[in-house]
Amino acid sequence: MSEEVGTSRRRWLGLTAALGAGLTGCKRSTPEAGSGPSLLGKPVSAYGERSTFETAARALPDTRTPETAASRTPLQDSCGILTPSALHYERHHAGVPRIDPAGHRLLIHGMVDRPLIFTMDEIRRLPAVSRIHFLECSGNSSGEWGEKTGRNAAQSHGLASCSEWTGVPLSLLLAEAGVQKRARWLMVEGADACKMQRSLPLEKAMNDALAAWGQNGEALRPEQGYPLRLLVPGWEGNISVKWLRRIMAVEEPYMVRDETSHYTDLMPDGTARVFTFMMEAKSLITFPSGGQKLAGPGYCQITGLAWSGRGRIERVEVSTDDGRTWRDASLQEPRLRMAFTRFYFPWNWDGKEAVLQSRSIDETGYVQPTKEALVAVRGLNSQYHYNGIKVWKVLADGSVSNA
Amino acid sequence: MSEEVGTSRRRWLGLTAALGAGLTGCKRSTPEAGSGPSLLGKPVSAYGERSTFETAARALPDTRTPETAASRTPLQDSCGILTPSALHYERHHAGVPRIDPAGHRLLIHGMVDRPLIFTMDEIRRLPAVSRIHFLECSGNSSGEWGEKTGRNAAQSHGLASCSEWTGVPLSLLLAEAGVQKRARWLMVEGADACKMQRSLPLEKAMNDALAAWGQNGEALRPEQGYPLRLLVPGWEGNISVKWLRRIMAVEEPYMVRDETSHYTDLMPDGTARVFTFMMEAKSLITFPSGGQKLAGPGYCQITGLAWSGRGRIERVEVSTDDGRTWRDASLQEPRLRMAFTRFYFPWNWDGKEAVLQSRSIDETGYVQPTKEALVAVRGLNSQYHYNGIKVWKVLADGSVSNA
Repeated sequence: MSEEVGTSRRRWLGLTAALGAGLTGCKRSTPEAGSGPSLLGKPVSAYGERSTFETAARALPDTRTPETAASRTPLQDSCGILTPSALHYERHHAGVPRIDPAGHRLLIHGMVDRPLIFTMDEIRRLPAVSRIHFLECSGNSSGEWGEKTGRNAAQSHGLASCSEWTGVPLSLLLAEAGVQKRARWLMVEGADACKMQRSLPLEKAMNDALAAWGQNGEALRPEQGYPLRLLVPGWEGNISVKWLRRIMAVEEPYMVRDETSHYTDLMPDGTARVFTFMMEAKSLITFPSGGQKLAGPGYCQITGLAWSGRGRIERVEVSTDDGRTWRDASLQEPRLRMAFTRFYFPWNWDGKEAVLQSRSIDETGYVQPTKEALVAVRGLNSQYHYNGIKVWKVLADGSVSNA
Repeated sequence: MSEEVGTSRRRWLGLTAALGAGLTGCKRSTPEAGSGPSLLGKPVSAYGERSTFETAARALPDTRTPETAASRTPLQDSCGILTPSALHYERHHAGVPRIDPAGHRLLIHGMVDRPLIFTMDEIRRLPAVSRIHFLECSGNSSGEWGEKTGRNAAQSHGLASCSEWTGVPLSLLLAEAGVQKRARWLMVEGADACKMQRSLPLEKAMNDALAAWGQNGEALRPEQGYPLRLLVPGWEGNISVKWLRRIMAVEEPYMVRDETSHYTDLMPDGTARVFTFMMEAKSLITFPSGGQKLAGPGYCQITGLAWSGRGRIERVEVSTDDGRTWRDASLQEPRLRMAFTRFYFPWNWDGKEAVLQSRSIDETGYVQPTKEALVAVRGLNSQYHYNGIKVWKVLADGSVSNA
């Protein structure tokens, strides 16, 4: 029995019986003759595709401007901690540019001793590292602030995904350029049509940011910044500028459009918090979740994802009784810093209405708040950085909806 | 500076200068006006695809029977520890069947108290775990036994890949069926046209084998057993039977075709070793590797992959001087048991001929042998389980070939 399930072999004896209507006893015979394919299947191929029976898809917005829009990872269909690159969430401000890596350049300049221009070949020859990290749009779950919450996992939390990223530590590139002592910030810029810009504190850049060119074992996908993106672990996705073409060392924040007109948090008193980079601890039950349906009473493995921009997930607690009692879920190992952590929680559904919730606690001791606690501090003017507990309701017919 | 690179910020100052011809100094100006796309790019989409500039592909065999054949992961193009599902190696004996999961069943019978049939819906409701593991065909590197070794990483070592697998512990399914005391082995069977069968010791099945339905965050790919496969960590790939449809508990090995006519190791004295399941510690330099070319003398980051069926990779040593001296490579964390571990080794190429090698040492202390040491014990009759040190030769013009 695995550690992750966190229980003994004995405990699960009779588990499949608890599945209810499902399981079929059978005579001790081999499968009937002729079952399964009897003809040769497809030959080997150069680049595989998923089964035509699989239909998981990013949730697309109803918009007339799909170039400045978001698509959402179908977290309700997820397993493990990785997001397939084809299903990684998107948030673009001017669409996905088609960039020939042979012509792409990264310029490092501003307050540096040695301004430098890198080709992609040069960047890929430099020492690389690979790390598994989540990315989350600061606008993820923005619909949860109001009364009309997301009706499924993609709608409520789908602007978060997790990949293995490969790239050059930004600290190495900056050391090569020789950042001058007075420089405290970087202005980072993408090569998309809107030339997305953000200001990044030099300290974070030197700590763990990457100029990433690889994702899940191959080149970055176009929607995630091909051929080069910034990857700023644990911070709001917008600052991990895609199609990275320019890094300028500066003394002060550059106060660009997308950190003044957007990506600031409006407080109850009307003032705006700016540079709220950190993505706080969060979690989501992905099964059972909105839009799914339980086949019937009996055993149900509750599972979901937790993550924190502050580091490792230390605990996840689950409640199946509308928040009256909470018990620890088991966590998939290894629990990586600033990465999705999958949790599991065994539940025997009695067939009555039930309210399911999860809350995560990270290695700093930060506890994911309830929506009420979050709103009490932050008010309802804010669009960004919602990390309240998500509530799912299981109805007597087994259907699951947003509570 | 990252731990993985294992060095100080200071050490790399001047590194990009060492890239040689490449880097361009530049004036402190912004990029010229108009550089980069100025038109809107592509809108958000439901399921992404890689850039059309990317061409990494599985190496296909020259065969008239591509249904019973292998395709090889292009490890020379790999980064990180994960293999994209689209590039996971294939080895089929009757092609890739097209299986509708709605009609697929898993039968567990034989020496069990409660024979059971599972639908895919039922299996997916059971407690799952996710783990990152390599899979390697026991025939991987079989060409290395002879004098004509693989000319690139795919040809020599491409029957190995690494994924995050999600599934139900086999121990749980077997506990549900109630395996009887006298049973010591399982006969496991696939649903492909040839009904691939193998014998699996019950002890290993109870320890860490999975009935896996997920791969890298989505459903298994058809070529990797959709909708259900066995996953036996650290053991030769053939026993991780794809399109799993039947598990029969038995007293003795079933002595099926693919463990008698194939997948046995012929020793120098003509006897055959059978049930040589374990994949021993192995490693491969993926850059620079055969078919690649260094742009010129100067800094070069050597990188590669190491793995062991016995557990965790503890060390990888690299030699750049034809085996005279060996130094420790730095290892990407986390180092997971029975998973790819990426290693890095900084090298300043002086522009002369050089011979590159890597050898891995796992947590049991097992040291990857030279080809000569391996052949001295196993002789040259054997096709399977080659894990000798792979040698690449860098010529003065920067081209890399099999030595």
